Amino acid sequence: MAHTRDPKDNAALLMRVKRISGQMEAIARALSSGAECADVLHQVAGVRGAVNGLMDEIFEAHLREHVARPGLSDTERAQGADELAAVMRRYAK
Amino acid sequence: MAHTRDPKDNAALLMRVKRISGQMEAIARALSSGAECADVLHQVAGVRGAVNGLMDEIFEAHLREHVARPGLSDTERAQGADELAAVMRRYAK
Amino acid sequence: MAHTRDPKDNAALLMRVKRISGQMEAIARALSSGAECADVLHQVAGVRGAVNGLMDEIFEAHLREHVARPGLSDTERAQGADELAAVMRRYAK
Amino acid sequence: MAHTRDPKDNAALLMRVKRISGQMEAIARALSSGAECADVLHQVAGVRGAVNGLMDEIFEAHLREHVARPGLSDTERAQGADELAAVMRRYAK
Repeated sequence: MAHTRDPKDNAALLMRVKRISGQMEAIARALSSGAECADVLHQVAGVRGAVNGLMDEIFEAHLREHVARPGLSDTERAQGADELAAVMRRYAK
Repeated sequence: MAHTRDPKDNAALLMRVKRISGQMEAIARALSSGAECADVLHQVAGVRGAVNGLMDEIFEAHLREHVARPGLSDTERAQGADELAAVMRRYAK
Repeated sequence: MAHTRDPKDNAALLMRVKRISGQMEAIARALSSGAECADVLHQVAGVRGAVNGLMDEIFEAHLREHVARPGLSDTERAQGADELAAVMRRYAK
Repeated sequence: MAHTRDPKDNAALLMRVKRISGQMEAIARALSSGAECADVLHQVAGVRGAVNGLMDEIFEAHLREHVARPGLSDTERAQGADELAAVMRRYAK
């Protein structure tokens, strides 16, 4: 099942994932070439922010698509909510 | 300047970065192939944990190498501490 | 409107809030009495974990009560989801 | 041992802790009086931000006082760094 009903949204998510992959490659290059420690720290912190943003976006897409969307059955909504709760519990910050 | 005095540590960091790149590629594939929303959420949450761990490791390496290490000047220690404080402030969670 | 249908759950939340208040008072005492810096750090980190846990619990209660619960209207569910998304966006970590 | 050399800084930290205690009491009152779920969520998210800020401030004070400060012995700096690393590891986000 797609994460979003709208293929355009899915393409946007994918673009975001690829941008983070690019940031990770830049960090690998920085580590390999002996870049300044402080610069690498900022790069990693930037990736952390980007991953948190991606997580929030997919979380919200799931919430709207699998819990709030009109036409779902009570059981489907309960399952969608259980899945979100499981992610929150397993990866509690 | 290298992030760690020990090339073995630097290689370990690089390995960790590459593992995260691999996880990001798996997420891109999952999104492209229409994998289950809940599965993608867990994958992204896993990457978030891995990035946080990487961040903590580089932060600690900087702390030991640029603030605590015997033989640094007072000015170098102050600068190392300023750099850590700047990262903390800029990316406050 | 109550946060949970079940008064027992609401009492449990309140208990949790009061426990965190107690932890904050212990930190105030530690600071006043000149306790070890490292000990205070651990106390504050403990409170942070407790507040994150409280946040997750209230978030989940809202999700189940105002988005997933059988019998809500489509509009009510959309509003409940909007409220969760607003909290996530405003306090993105 | 005091957390900061400067009693004025310690008073500022204490003020900050008391403000968070006040926010927790407001949350307890909101829960008791059946306030809107979404409002409580925002209040708890606000406390989370405040606790993170407090944590960062005490972390930085420790870093400057117990690791970077001129005049410490190598052993004292190593111990100060170990304490920070222990907090980071134990409460990894």
